[in-house]
Amino acid sequence: MEGSLHVLATLPVGPVTYQLRRASAAELEAVVELLAADQLGVTRESTTDLAPYRTAFAAIDADPAHLLLVATTGDEVVATMQLTFIPGLARRGALRAQIEAVRVHERHRSNGLGGEMIRWAIDEARRRGCALVQLTTDKQRSDAHRFYQRLGFTASHEGLKLAL
Amino acid sequence: MEGSLHVLATLPVGPVTYQLRRASAAELEAVVELLAADQLGVTRESTTDLAPYRTAFAAIDADPAHLLLVATTGDEVVATMQLTFIPGLARRGALRAQIEAVRVHERHRSNGLGGEMIRWAIDEARRRGCALVQLTTDKQRSDAHRFYQRLGFTASHEGLKLAL
Repeated sequence: MEGSLHVLATLPVGPVTYQLRRASAAELEAVVELLAADQLGVTRESTTDLAPYRTAFAAIDADPAHLLLVATTGDEVVATMQLTFIPGLARRGALRAQIEAVRVHERHRSNGLGGEMIRWAIDEARRRGCALVQLTTDKQRSDAHRFYQRLGFTASHEGLKLAL
Repeated sequence: MEGSLHVLATLPVGPVTYQLRRASAAELEAVVELLAADQLGVTRESTTDLAPYRTAFAAIDADPAHLLLVATTGDEVVATMQLTFIPGLARRGALRAQIEAVRVHERHRSNGLGGEMIRWAIDEARRRGCALVQLTTDKQRSDAHRFYQRLGFTASHEGLKLAL
């Protein structure tokens, strides 16, 4: 997609500088591998059949309401997250930014990259006029709760899911 | 908007039959009144200035990823909810349906209308090929948690919010 290699942000984290960009179709497999390497993703994802991921990627990439991002260093994809911007009537017509599917390669964890990515997402939400940033994390991910609370999020809601 | 008066479902609940439809621009004020009558919405909404709601309504109505619904009986709007369909890579490229801003007028509560609306939303998510239905509810709404759990939802996640 035109412009997909445009660098959205440069994130210096200790001695390493990461680039934050929209994911390109060529990076899809690397992103799926990040999802599959996750403690919960390992049972949910399949790296042998990329077809359903390609269909989803096309839907994400076609709609400006969604931003699928990668963080790279050199030509290696080391992290990903998705932002979705949701208009709504509640809270005086508030636009909200929703963060989904945040994953950082284990060799690049605990160095501050994840925090820089989320801070960028919060800034981007502000630039787009959002009144709220929201996400849910599995209750099994206690490290993630502390991480988001340090970044200013409040665990004010129950996150309810129904698998179809 | 063309087709906005198309009835999506007829919901018989006891002696009353409700119609479920996409909300029209003419019903915006009635929907905002439902949001403002809510225990938490009373401090968040404003029924004196509809301009920000009109802007949000236009954004919702322009994008087929969103469905702002009303339930009516006669010509009275008695309930509302919003559905948003979010494509994503996680869970093998799962499309997810997100439910937001469910409100039922207090005179039409506890009669089963809310349950019928959510069951319709689940069916619609299935028709659109979603793998997951998700929502968050404020931890102060303990009645809502029981309501959604009776409908099959699992409170598996923390819902984190950051107001900008």
